[in-house]
Amino acid sequence: MSPTGPAASDFPVLSAQGQVTFLGAGPGDPGLLTLRAVEALASADVLVAEPDVLDVVRSHAREGVSTPELTVVDVSSTTAGVPVLRDAANLVMEAAKGGRRVVRAVAGDPGLDGDAGAEMLACAAAGVPFEVVPGIANAVGVPAYAGVPLRDAQGTDVRFVDARTASDRCWSEVGASDATAVVSTTLDSVAAAAGELVSAGRKPDTPLTVTIAGTTTRQRTWTATLGTIAQTLKQAKVLPSPEGHRPVIAVVGERSSAAQRDQLAWFESKPLFGWRVLVPRTKEQAASLSDQLRSYGAVPHEVPTIAVEPPRTPQQMERAVKGLVTGRYEW
Amino acid sequence: MSPTGPAASDFPVLSAQGQVTFLGAGPGDPGLLTLRAVEALASADVLVAEPDVLDVVRSHAREGVSTPELTVVDVSSTTAGVPVLRDAANLVMEAAKGGRRVVRAVAGDPGLDGDAGAEMLACAAAGVPFEVVPGIANAVGVPAYAGVPLRDAQGTDVRFVDARTASDRCWSEVGASDATAVVSTTLDSVAAAAGELVSAGRKPDTPLTVTIAGTTTRQRTWTATLGTIAQTLKQAKVLPSPEGHRPVIAVVGERSSAAQRDQLAWFESKPLFGWRVLVPRTKEQAASLSDQLRSYGAVPHEVPTIAVEPPRTPQQMERAVKGLVTGRYEW
Repeated sequence: MSPTGPAASDFPVLSAQGQVTFLGAGPGDPGLLTLRAVEALASADVLVAEPDVLDVVRSHAREGVSTPELTVVDVSSTTAGVPVLRDAANLVMEAAKGGRRVVRAVAGDPGLDGDAGAEMLACAAAGVPFEVVPGIANAVGVPAYAGVPLRDAQGTDVRFVDARTASDRCWSEVGASDATAVVSTTLDSVAAAAGELVSAGRKPDTPLTVTIAGTTTRQRTWTATLGTIAQTLKQAKVLPSPEGHRPVIAVVGERSSAAQRDQLAWFESKPLFGWRVLVPRTKEQAASLSDQLRSYGAVPHEVPTIAVEPPRTPQQMERAVKGLVTGRYEW
Repeated sequence: MSPTGPAASDFPVLSAQGQVTFLGAGPGDPGLLTLRAVEALASADVLVAEPDVLDVVRSHAREGVSTPELTVVDVSSTTAGVPVLRDAANLVMEAAKGGRRVVRAVAGDPGLDGDAGAEMLACAAAGVPFEVVPGIANAVGVPAYAGVPLRDAQGTDVRFVDARTASDRCWSEVGASDATAVVSTTLDSVAAAAGELVSAGRKPDTPLTVTIAGTTTRQRTWTATLGTIAQTLKQAKVLPSPEGHRPVIAVVGERSSAAQRDQLAWFESKPLFGWRVLVPRTKEQAASLSDQLRSYGAVPHEVPTIAVEPPRTPQQMERAVKGLVTGRYEW
């Protein structure tokens, strides 16, 4: 270690200067936040988060943290006065220049988010110090919970494709390849993406899994092939539906074969997966039951309907003991 | 929610049956462990970890957790009696069948690890319940700390290539594409990988970053092009060296351009990056200084050389106060 370090006077004074933490909030399971993310959230003055990850990150922020609202609107239908997601960059820069610690939280990982890189460059240009806390990318975490390993001892090439912005060249390349492809898309568009890949040369019987709300207790996965996915979603009465715009992760390739997934779908096959279970115990008694329920995939809702307390007067206790002896209490 | 649930008697009894957690330990920074990983480690009976992540995970395990040793040896030079990494699967299965909670920790993410998938299938075949805790993949976390966003608003396709097992077809496809390629390889092999890509059609002036020990305080990154990387590593006296076998992450594509990275290298440009700083304060006083040092990139080493304690007798205090009044202490 022999760095040519700066003199002490060169150090920026953090308290006088704002800073920005670009933070990956992971795919949805609040347990997939990193320790570093929790640390950054605990010291944030301002939290700028995409609406779909706000709940996950806000629970680790301080009381009274400022969370300016971001509304997702279709860019084509923007009306004046409504904040849109593109405002995030402005909100972040404004708060940081005002000397505040800003956490900018995105779903998944910031490095794979199309916009975060531009916001980092804006920080650098304005002299605002920033750091990056990587998160579990949706394209990595969702297949893990769906029971689809992305690579085996022979498999060497994994492709992460964002269908919203994929070019014709990209579809041609992925279609011509036999690599595992992880496609970020929406329920409405997954059949179109499968069609692109078949047009470009992938066999229609290539296995495919499609997962919605991955890593959460609402997770659902469908297994099909590139050729049958449209029909599968229709038969399962999933499409058409108002949920069509919701994001999904599709994994294309032999890793998604139904036979293998049947064995590896550890999350959705938990015996109580998706159940919401009322735990009407005292707060102290509830914890161990809740832990056990969670290990079976259920979502415990603790409602302490009774409480165990010491008697308010010694007389109450005496009466109770007397009652036991005289047989007044019948169990 | 209307699942057709099993009867209560169908529930496996966790205490009598072992289980396995496949856990991604991330790229090296201990702060990149997830909350779920910490939870799983805290209740593990047996911890089977690759040597390079053992330190990261062991600090969250219980006292007395069993950590059977795995030695990395060249498969070709295996001698009898020395456990090799391939033994991990056997160790895991044996412990789980014996009713223990096993954590199997790998670097990065288990879904992108070539072997974890096979171990999951073995668990499924043996009826051993398992779960997966995804981790920050090296190919995602290391570029984040190196200041290389993998995707911009136009960029749509990111390829993760493992150079150890990449086929000729894989190199041809990646070489012919203009997608960002994240190549997992070693310092010794990075120039060969660059050569493969140029042979397959990538322009020799395509930017490339190579990062060793990513996300740790020993991280180093070199910026070059596919055509110049061999020379760059030689001129920097990095190669040849005994460190040649160490893993690196190489990011190939416009995202790696030197001009952009100069602005975004937030981690290595911290003013005290890589410094080891002695903090000779009392335990109580050291914490805030250590936190501040860490925020400048330094590694604080707390050595409490003094302690603040109450006087052992009231007489000592009296003498001290008297000394102040009579001028015996000179500050």
